[in-house]
Amino acid sequence: MPNPTQPLATLKSRLLEIQHLKDAAALLSWDQETYMPAGGGQTRAEQLATLQTLAHDKFVSPEIEDLLSHHIDPTTRLVQANGLDDASKALLRETWRDFSRAKKLPSDFVNRRERECSLAQQVWAEARRRDDFMHFLPYLQRVVALKFEEIDYMGYDNSPYDALLDTYDPGATVAQLQPLFATLRHGLLELLKHVREAASPPDDRILFQTYDEQQQLAFGKLALHGMGYDFNRGRLDLSAHPFTTSFHPTDVRVTTRVFEKDLPSCLFSCIHEGGHGLYEQGLPQEQYGTPLGEAISLGIHESQSRLWENNVGRSKAFWTHFFPLLRQYFPSQLGAISLDVFHAALNRVKPSLIRVEADEVTYNLHIMVRFEIELALIEKRVAVKDLPDLWREKMQEYLGVTPERDAEGVLQDVHWSLGALGYFPTYTLGNLYASMFFRQACQDVPALETEIQQGHLLSLKDWLNHNIHQYGRQYSSTDLLHRITGRVLSVEPFLSYLRTKIGDIYGFSITR
Amino acid sequence: MPNPTQPLATLKSRLLEIQHLKDAAALLSWDQETYMPAGGGQTRAEQLATLQTLAHDKFVSPEIEDLLSHHIDPTTRLVQANGLDDASKALLRETWRDFSRAKKLPSDFVNRRERECSLAQQVWAEARRRDDFMHFLPYLQRVVALKFEEIDYMGYDNSPYDALLDTYDPGATVAQLQPLFATLRHGLLELLKHVREAASPPDDRILFQTYDEQQQLAFGKLALHGMGYDFNRGRLDLSAHPFTTSFHPTDVRVTTRVFEKDLPSCLFSCIHEGGHGLYEQGLPQEQYGTPLGEAISLGIHESQSRLWENNVGRSKAFWTHFFPLLRQYFPSQLGAISLDVFHAALNRVKPSLIRVEADEVTYNLHIMVRFEIELALIEKRVAVKDLPDLWREKMQEYLGVTPERDAEGVLQDVHWSLGALGYFPTYTLGNLYASMFFRQACQDVPALETEIQQGHLLSLKDWLNHNIHQYGRQYSSTDLLHRITGRVLSVEPFLSYLRTKIGDIYGFSITR
Repeated sequence: MPNPTQPLATLKSRLLEIQHLKDAAALLSWDQETYMPAGGGQTRAEQLATLQTLAHDKFVSPEIEDLLSHHIDPTTRLVQANGLDDASKALLRETWRDFSRAKKLPSDFVNRRERECSLAQQVWAEARRRDDFMHFLPYLQRVVALKFEEIDYMGYDNSPYDALLDTYDPGATVAQLQPLFATLRHGLLELLKHVREAASPPDDRILFQTYDEQQQLAFGKLALHGMGYDFNRGRLDLSAHPFTTSFHPTDVRVTTRVFEKDLPSCLFSCIHEGGHGLYEQGLPQEQYGTPLGEAISLGIHESQSRLWENNVGRSKAFWTHFFPLLRQYFPSQLGAISLDVFHAALNRVKPSLIRVEADEVTYNLHIMVRFEIELALIEKRVAVKDLPDLWREKMQEYLGVTPERDAEGVLQDVHWSLGALGYFPTYTLGNLYASMFFRQACQDVPALETEIQQGHLLSLKDWLNHNIHQYGRQYSSTDLLHRITGRVLSVEPFLSYLRTKIGDIYGFSITR
Repeated sequence: MPNPTQPLATLKSRLLEIQHLKDAAALLSWDQETYMPAGGGQTRAEQLATLQTLAHDKFVSPEIEDLLSHHIDPTTRLVQANGLDDASKALLRETWRDFSRAKKLPSDFVNRRERECSLAQQVWAEARRRDDFMHFLPYLQRVVALKFEEIDYMGYDNSPYDALLDTYDPGATVAQLQPLFATLRHGLLELLKHVREAASPPDDRILFQTYDEQQQLAFGKLALHGMGYDFNRGRLDLSAHPFTTSFHPTDVRVTTRVFEKDLPSCLFSCIHEGGHGLYEQGLPQEQYGTPLGEAISLGIHESQSRLWENNVGRSKAFWTHFFPLLRQYFPSQLGAISLDVFHAALNRVKPSLIRVEADEVTYNLHIMVRFEIELALIEKRVAVKDLPDLWREKMQEYLGVTPERDAEGVLQDVHWSLGALGYFPTYTLGNLYASMFFRQACQDVPALETEIQQGHLLSLKDWLNHNIHQYGRQYSSTDLLHRITGRVLSVEPFLSYLRTKIGDIYGFSITR
């Protein structure tokens, strides 16, 4: 009988080679957003397309298929990894999933998609600057056409939108999201009503005084250090849009942006990306290149960033330790401000036009707007050219505000230009997961809040490493959540967390 | 009859894809030297090995061979590009040369070489820090063993060292270099004798006062701007060892280093690397990926950097314009210094231990030391373990100085750890070419010296673009030199240039 681990070892070495190509592409992208001179843009798009197409071609090769086929039941087409341990079975299951999906996409399509989206992104940035949707329209139409083509290749059972969701959050469907979002919306609108009726809402103008940019960055680094983000295996740079990228758990980089008159922007970008960064630094190095060395899904990834940004970074416990430090960085701006006033300012709730600046209550309403618009687009109930109108309509319906300029409306996010339709819902899933994980962490580590008050954040990092990061994609997001909390995904922990925090700050209580 | 340009067009598109892989590898290397966190080193070596092996495999593929074979005479094995223009013929000739050479190296060897050299480089850096040659010895022995293996694959006619030289400077041979170097040595020692006997040698201590590092970098950028280096297609960063890298003529990056108590280091690194950068920015974009989009040889590349660094950057004409500016950057250090004193300080001649700090007269003696040692090593007249002794002996013989520490001796240069044996002679070739080119430029552009005195450097840049850069590898270095100057390579223009400049400063004259 042949050694069952031999094809697996060969498979892993082939996956490693493909991973190196993806790492190189990731570095090309990171460089594009951080240090690349403007003149290099066009060639960079071609370099990226070549590398990504090569990685795709190498992955869907007959050799990989042959290696996988040692473990595939010819009748069920499922992985039968007899004689292997659970981790190896999971590795094969997830690689087979990736392979089956990738195999549906022709190499030529991958190449076209990369080029078109690279180009569309550049045009989008220009269109947003000029507040000119019509400039972007033909490019967005091509991107959407590519998505329809992709959906045709991928196939779906119910909504064509499911084919896109599945790319970013395996197993997520429209049928699952719609009731979840409906319950969430109901709870958020109720919260918002209380907020609107509150007698003395917090004032957040202290956050928008003049704050030296170098000092802001220094404090951002301090927060990252405190979270346990390892600068020997990472770095912080500036980019127009904050992001995290990884070339291996030993080289995980975060970026931020900094504005002199906006303290929260840099601060929460650092903490948010730091949450992503801890996930990537916490993945098992020995599984690098395999699915077990990768994050489960965008929803779980976002749970890590939102947990640190909101459940921790907007908590009074966190600022009990960090606010005195922040005051040392900005004595003239914050010297006379109390912890309570600062904490309330950080948690002010106010419907606004821009998603990335939204508070925790209205943030998910921004996501619902996008979800409904994308769904209508993919189900061909609206044309690309009519998106600006639909955007205004939905913003009014969900948030009660209407953008006057498309730059503050339909053009505000980069995602569609990148072809990332179906991505937005993962942000809300992340918020829901985050509250469930954080609640469980507080139960598992009874001293956690006290530790956070003292600035000791490593117990939380360790809990996340141990319960989530170390497994890579060994479990599905649903299974992982159940292993950790014993529960299925629900909106209640998130709403309950918000009702308590926002109720405390605004002076109301909602009993259930 | 088939269209003769069809295989050529296909070939170019395949070469472009390979070029994108090489570009990605170049970015991985640039990043390693500039921004990579320390923890990422080990994986980076593996990523580089994968990309370079892939690029090699794609190049020596049957498809490339088949495309080339449309133009190869089956008897002579030479390119027969009937019906094509001269540029296309040159493209095929050079691609065939590269292919024939690359085909001799097994993929496994390329991969081993990349890994071993990446590792050896890290160990070398540590060994130099610790002044511990024995730490580096086993790694250097493996690198040298790899070079012997490479020489066996490549083959040679006379000296095995020719196989290495040919990698960096096609056509260069030991038989060509030895008489050239002998004449050069004779001329340099004569110069050095006059320098030693001079009554009042210049004092260069003014260059080693305290100079603010940010101001030094700002002035470096000013010089690069003045040379016509395009920052929209490039950038300047810091690295331990200054270098230039290109990912396309629209993205050519230079690095420098800066020391507070050493004005020449940053200044001349910037100008030197700027010369390399102008070559890369001046290559024809439409030939990108083909040999016609590449520099001819390291010797010609070095001629560009040395021309700008020495023939221009150490000339009185250059500083006539730039010294008043430099004084504005450093009024307290240079406000009371005259142009003549500054210019003389920049050109002080003194035998010293470190190549990269050497003056123009002794620089090539450093190269001769390395050439003789490498030749002895490759011709198996000396063992790796005996290199430190041989180094001391040759330094005493050529320069009259002996290093006490290996860190200032055999360990000073990175080249051997990278496997770059046979590389050093290109520096001297570059110096010789530089003087011949610059002399010709002064003849072709009679106003050149006056323009340089006025800070107008673009005529020189244009001359270099027009005569050298635009052709890529269309001509061999010998043919290019002959096209431009009507002459063959000789040491006399270089010696004559030095005799005049150094004689003026030291107050002697050598008549011929």
